[in-house]
Amino acid sequence: MHDSRTAEDIASTVARPTLRPEAMAAGESGIVEVFNYGRGRQGLIPLWVGEGDLPTPAFICDAATRSLAAGETFYTHQRGIPELRDAIARYIGRVYGVAASPERFNVTIGGMQALQTAIRMIAGSGDEVILPTPAWPNFHGALSVAGAQPVELPLIYDTSAGNAIWRFDLDRLAAAIGPRTRAIIVNSPANPTGWTATREEIVAILELARRYGLWIVADEIYGRIVFDRECAPSFRDVMEEEDRIFFVQTMSKNWSMTGWRVGWLEAPPEYGQIIENLVQYSTSGVPVFAQRAAVAALDQGEGFFAHLLSRVRRSRDIICDGLAATGRVHFAKPEGAFYLFCTIDGEADTRALALRLVDEAGVGLAPGSAFGQGGEQFVRICFARKPEDMAEATRRLVTWLAR
Amino acid sequence: MHDSRTAEDIASTVARPTLRPEAMAAGESGIVEVFNYGRGRQGLIPLWVGEGDLPTPAFICDAATRSLAAGETFYTHQRGIPELRDAIARYIGRVYGVAASPERFNVTIGGMQALQTAIRMIAGSGDEVILPTPAWPNFHGALSVAGAQPVELPLIYDTSAGNAIWRFDLDRLAAAIGPRTRAIIVNSPANPTGWTATREEIVAILELARRYGLWIVADEIYGRIVFDRECAPSFRDVMEEEDRIFFVQTMSKNWSMTGWRVGWLEAPPEYGQIIENLVQYSTSGVPVFAQRAAVAALDQGEGFFAHLLSRVRRSRDIICDGLAATGRVHFAKPEGAFYLFCTIDGEADTRALALRLVDEAGVGLAPGSAFGQGGEQFVRICFARKPEDMAEATRRLVTWLAR
Repeated sequence: MHDSRTAEDIASTVARPTLRPEAMAAGESGIVEVFNYGRGRQGLIPLWVGEGDLPTPAFICDAATRSLAAGETFYTHQRGIPELRDAIARYIGRVYGVAASPERFNVTIGGMQALQTAIRMIAGSGDEVILPTPAWPNFHGALSVAGAQPVELPLIYDTSAGNAIWRFDLDRLAAAIGPRTRAIIVNSPANPTGWTATREEIVAILELARRYGLWIVADEIYGRIVFDRECAPSFRDVMEEEDRIFFVQTMSKNWSMTGWRVGWLEAPPEYGQIIENLVQYSTSGVPVFAQRAAVAALDQGEGFFAHLLSRVRRSRDIICDGLAATGRVHFAKPEGAFYLFCTIDGEADTRALALRLVDEAGVGLAPGSAFGQGGEQFVRICFARKPEDMAEATRRLVTWLAR
Repeated sequence: MHDSRTAEDIASTVARPTLRPEAMAAGESGIVEVFNYGRGRQGLIPLWVGEGDLPTPAFICDAATRSLAAGETFYTHQRGIPELRDAIARYIGRVYGVAASPERFNVTIGGMQALQTAIRMIAGSGDEVILPTPAWPNFHGALSVAGAQPVELPLIYDTSAGNAIWRFDLDRLAAAIGPRTRAIIVNSPANPTGWTATREEIVAILELARRYGLWIVADEIYGRIVFDRECAPSFRDVMEEEDRIFFVQTMSKNWSMTGWRVGWLEAPPEYGQIIENLVQYSTSGVPVFAQRAAVAALDQGEGFFAHLLSRVRRSRDIICDGLAATGRVHFAKPEGAFYLFCTIDGEADTRALALRLVDEAGVGLAPGSAFGQGGEQFVRICFARKPEDMAEATRRLVTWLAR
């Protein structure tokens, strides 16, 4: 097979680097650094990670327990059990008022595998993907380890009208599209800023994507965690069946299931076999018992979600009002998701600030530097916790600010 | 950012293919084709997939149920909970008689994510990985979707001494190494052939890998499913700490946990941070409750494993003896793993044969064509089922052969 192998060939084999550069392209997130610094601190209120404080409700856990007791411990459908794919289709139809075929839905190991699978299909070495920032660090990480180049597109933090707002600049988006551009990631409502695309922005982004033959990776996982309406505007509201849109979704947030690692990738049905192969050759499916839990959450989880959302809303008001009253903390009040992304007067080095707040205030925040361009001066505070905790965290931060 | 964008640039953006070729590089396995053909057939005995018929034992499921009841439903350590990494280290120490640091072990979504993560670190576009065949189809699939080139190295099916044996040819291995070679995959005991490397072969393979600076991906998941000794020879027996070996492992086979998707990647500790990042940006960890189940299996699962192994051994004897007695079925009696890989006189098209056997014998087998070079003339029969089922499957096949 290699009959012409020479001494030079052998030498070049030996000289190759130990690991591929893509594998090393993504660093540890700056959130993890602070998290590891504060892990296990007595009495600390942890607001750094994007998850709530509620464990998964019992009716969801019970579905998994029953499945285990019934012996559902074998390999299963690589795209998800039919019962879950049907439940997702029902759920989407109910929430968005549009019928969807189960053939569009592929069950994954959390939203993260949905995102990674979407990226693997469309972007690798030599490709660019436009990423509005500040952004969840895993977008950058997943693109980097795929060998793709994230092209950061900072949102505009606009304070000109009195109240600060985050604004998406369509002209900048158009200018960022180049010959190597493959996709645009649109996370709305956004982690960490709470920016929520308007219907008009969604129409315009879709129009650009169609014009240049780009994919849209739509991360609308916070689509129902919004405070002034039922649902955030969605690509679903304006798209055609054949549009090149991958939706990444997760059970994690709405039903307190972060640890379950169940999500889904919604794609045009013609990509189903490719997604099935990518799942087969990376994780080989999602446990049936976890999928049964997801069915219970989708079919019977509205009461829990309403409870969770009302808690999140109260906690948002507590932290926003409490910090705004100091006059030293500034932010655009989040329209969606469950993060307050704010600046603190006189604190530009937010990495150092986050480490100090662990020691000095007993509050764990995420430094804005973890979220890419435009986030450096901010800290992110997750308010998906019970109002009593948020009141105490607010009190500690206010006290610290007044020191 | 792209100020010099021209009409040609835009045209080239639009003209690019919809998906990356790597994503489409791996096809559906030939096993799945037969599986889908026979799925749900009344009374069919399914011997096509690599899993047993026993559900996960209750003491393992109970550990997960207790964890769920305790509210362990949150994000967790990306490399696995410390309790599981410790349990793996204890287990390896006990079974192989060598102390191992928990820092070597990284918990993954099954052995499949362990394999995929290892491949991502070492091989991509332009790289070659040597794959002894016949081989589990997912090796080929995982390499292909990574963009790497599998270089198939057929084992020799040697019938010269009367009893057939599968033989590994070290000279052919040496000849297959070229300037693009990055790694050798060594699956021993092997799926589907049952070939089990001798200690001498392992020493020689390691020697070649050291000489050319290659990685070894050691899939020893069937290391304890052997019939004439305690454990199959392992790279662990002969390696130094610093050798470039990735071990992929799984909870699936020894403890009937195929559906749980828990495994681990063992690597030199200096790669721990890179593996953590790759897990973070692909699946973001393994559910805590599933990890608790794995701890129970490793710490308290020896009795169950002994039961499983004795069943597998009896089933192996039933099918091997029954089919050999026809004089029309030929094979190397497997030394390890739980597959009979055999030829049937006059049946060269094993894909067609597997489909016919679903209809005509009520037995589901995997066609050898799914396993790469050297497997085309064979069928694979999984004998990890209760002896009564294997006796019935044997009876059906013998009757069919005598038709």
